[in-house]
Amino acid sequence: MLSLDVRPIFYVIGALLSVIAVAMVAPMIADLAAGQDDWRVFAVSSGLTLFFGVLLMLTNRADRIALSLRQTFILTTFAWIVVGAFAALPFTFAEQRLTYANAYFEAMSGLTTTGASAYATVQTLPPGLLLWRSLLVWLGGIGIVGMGIVILPFLRVGGMQLFRSESSDKSDKVVPRAADMALGFGWVYLALTIACIIMLRLAGMPMFDAINHSMTALGTGGFSTKDSSIGHFQNAGVEWTIILFMFLGSLPFVRFISMIKGDTKALWHDSQVRHYAAFTLIVAGLLALYLIARDHLEPMEAIRHSLFNCVSLITTTGFASTDYLAWGPGPVALFFILTLVGGCTGSTSGGIKMFRFEVLWLALRMQINRLFSPNRIIPLTYNGKPVDNDVIISVMSFTFLYVALILIFAVLLGLTGLDYVTAISAAATALGNVGPGLSTMIGPVGNYEPLHDFAVWIMSLAMLLGRLELFTVFVLLSPSFWRR
Amino acid sequence: MLSLDVRPIFYVIGALLSVIAVAMVAPMIADLAAGQDDWRVFAVSSGLTLFFGVLLMLTNRADRIALSLRQTFILTTFAWIVVGAFAALPFTFAEQRLTYANAYFEAMSGLTTTGASAYATVQTLPPGLLLWRSLLVWLGGIGIVGMGIVILPFLRVGGMQLFRSESSDKSDKVVPRAADMALGFGWVYLALTIACIIMLRLAGMPMFDAINHSMTALGTGGFSTKDSSIGHFQNAGVEWTIILFMFLGSLPFVRFISMIKGDTKALWHDSQVRHYAAFTLIVAGLLALYLIARDHLEPMEAIRHSLFNCVSLITTTGFASTDYLAWGPGPVALFFILTLVGGCTGSTSGGIKMFRFEVLWLALRMQINRLFSPNRIIPLTYNGKPVDNDVIISVMSFTFLYVALILIFAVLLGLTGLDYVTAISAAATALGNVGPGLSTMIGPVGNYEPLHDFAVWIMSLAMLLGRLELFTVFVLLSPSFWRR
Repeated sequence: MLSLDVRPIFYVIGALLSVIAVAMVAPMIADLAAGQDDWRVFAVSSGLTLFFGVLLMLTNRADRIALSLRQTFILTTFAWIVVGAFAALPFTFAEQRLTYANAYFEAMSGLTTTGASAYATVQTLPPGLLLWRSLLVWLGGIGIVGMGIVILPFLRVGGMQLFRSESSDKSDKVVPRAADMALGFGWVYLALTIACIIMLRLAGMPMFDAINHSMTALGTGGFSTKDSSIGHFQNAGVEWTIILFMFLGSLPFVRFISMIKGDTKALWHDSQVRHYAAFTLIVAGLLALYLIARDHLEPMEAIRHSLFNCVSLITTTGFASTDYLAWGPGPVALFFILTLVGGCTGSTSGGIKMFRFEVLWLALRMQINRLFSPNRIIPLTYNGKPVDNDVIISVMSFTFLYVALILIFAVLLGLTGLDYVTAISAAATALGNVGPGLSTMIGPVGNYEPLHDFAVWIMSLAMLLGRLELFTVFVLLSPSFWRR
Repeated sequence: MLSLDVRPIFYVIGALLSVIAVAMVAPMIADLAAGQDDWRVFAVSSGLTLFFGVLLMLTNRADRIALSLRQTFILTTFAWIVVGAFAALPFTFAEQRLTYANAYFEAMSGLTTTGASAYATVQTLPPGLLLWRSLLVWLGGIGIVGMGIVILPFLRVGGMQLFRSESSDKSDKVVPRAADMALGFGWVYLALTIACIIMLRLAGMPMFDAINHSMTALGTGGFSTKDSSIGHFQNAGVEWTIILFMFLGSLPFVRFISMIKGDTKALWHDSQVRHYAAFTLIVAGLLALYLIARDHLEPMEAIRHSLFNCVSLITTTGFASTDYLAWGPGPVALFFILTLVGGCTGSTSGGIKMFRFEVLWLALRMQINRLFSPNRIIPLTYNGKPVDNDVIISVMSFTFLYVALILIFAVLLGLTGLDYVTAISAAATALGNVGPGLSTMIGPVGNYEPLHDFAVWIMSLAMLLGRLELFTVFVLLSPSFWRR
């Protein structure tokens, strides 16, 4: 048995719970302002969460938080599990009561910025619950950006070592730096959110909806206050605004900071951003042509709908401007691919992510060239950094495990009675933190309310695994992790 | 431009065409014996094929066939394309006329031992055409085994370098050795086919059906003389016999030779065989339990049906003892996985193949261990041979490309109007050389007759790519392959 000091782990989890408890005050105020009795739900949830948070902090105080590699792995996984458990409380305490399985699903869906909902309808929910869902996405987004820049490169999961900087190599400073950085990004993130709110208001969206959709667009979560998502508003200005901010949310936030510091081309110099933008435009362009040919849409309307729903899936947001499943079988197969792709690393989006496809492409080309020129040595580079075999194998292991998990989860979901398209698209959309699936039940205008409890837990697990880049969790399943 | 001597390539293709021309005599005799006018179709096809075959051989004679690496790549791909083009002739010349697209599909489906059929019904076909389909599978099987043991390890595609022997390293002897070996396996293959015919006769199958099913079972092709496949016979003895010979056809043939030479445990000492057998038994066992629980089948009946259809898919044969799509959504997702898995390398079966999963598993475990013990060096071995990074990256590249191609082909098939399940399962079943898909149209009791011509060509391409382990073909698409 490994001699493991769990105190710093408990301490950080306690701190995170305290943050969640404080965050619960916002929906409480929203309910109070709207004269909804529901505010009590948030008061109780907040009190309970704060109690456990402070308890954990007080009983595990340390002068200095220095985490080892193993402690960081354990903390990262358990923090998400425990925070989700408390964030679920308002959903199960409220009058519009969810079972705890569904409440946990809803909370995990928010925190992982997935945006899949277990509510059959959201338009009848009190403002507090709606705000809480959006806030979870927004807070989850900050956590993910911080984790993607500081913790995951340090843990070297799935090729993330490509994004190591000097600072991420100093293991004993991981947590303080994560907190620092999260704060730094917090400001950029907040500024972008406010910009989005203003633009949505200018386009004519009501204030409450504007706040909620801004938080879930930037967090690429995709929870909406309306059952038919953005399509509800039938407003081109709203749709263009959302396209912009979903896309911003899926870009590497560290480049925004560089741009503010004066390196104005930082974003464009990042190879993943260039390829990601090109991929998005090409796919959306082809789909727009298809829509013009098939449904005789006006070019601008075709482009807007195509771009909105492609960007929504590629950024793993999951908003819908229309029921795109009605676009025929070719697009459905394409949407399945988009569900897998994902945005840039260091953003709020999920999926396999663009840098991995770039590394895979480099490796495939090298493979093919070496087949007929076995003795040629071809050094690979990515964004000017050398790509060694270690990185290639990490990226490929990740991709393989990702696909294998989709198939395994699809079998498990199929056993609960879901048809094949529902099962495999639910597995892919959960693992990619996207949200909607590709069948009527769980599609852009559907929800996850009809799912069996077992299926709901599987989905929560898949969302967590996807968010933590798989290996962060799988490491804990290795017996030798726990041995010394 | 590469200075390339195409003569040896043309010469070998000419020789293969001559073999095909001679093989066409068998269905001609079958039709003559049955008093069918259809024999003329084979006489004409054979004459045409022989003419071009002999022409190519005469105009490209050389004292000695010595192929370079590049020539071998070109030969391997083009041989399959050209042989398929001539093998298709009887299907398009016959009274039960197929369009050339469908005829080529049928021929490629046979030669790649896929077993997907473009005929809406086969029971009305004359015996010559039925025998020709089976013969293509049988001959394709020999070609594949020979290629898998001699050529592909030499070409190092997709991790096949793990199966290099000293002999496969001497490049200038590749073709003569391939011919030698094909002859050696030919005898084992023939003996097994005859054994299967005898056992099927003993179980009560008519002679003509026994010959056809023996050839397509051992070739893991799965063409049947009946529209409802093996289910037509409603005969447990037949089913057990077919299970046995499909399984034998998916084992590494080189181990059979070793066993004959006295190394009686050669098969069992091959790690892929052990894992493959264990995987098959576990999956079929679980599925049998599911069938007992769900449909209250008798245990022996559940085991027989489960084993038959699992073995049929895992070996990439594609026979069906019953319409297994009626077993519910959980099994359908499982069958999709089985469509991907495939048998052992050096057998007649397709798919990703067991050794790749073994290498992936080794690599994943190494990855996970290295995440928390970054400085530990863990040497990997497979069947006693070291597995270096080169092999791991080859195997992973193959698997990634395989999955990516399924998704791309699914989009293209979807654009022809096929629904998502039909499109993705058609792509997977073609690339894996399996045969049946997972929707009613193309399922175990369906066929590919309703497909659009474009879809049919896509399927033919996918079968070819899968059969040649992807990279053998993709190498030819690299511009630098053609430069010096």
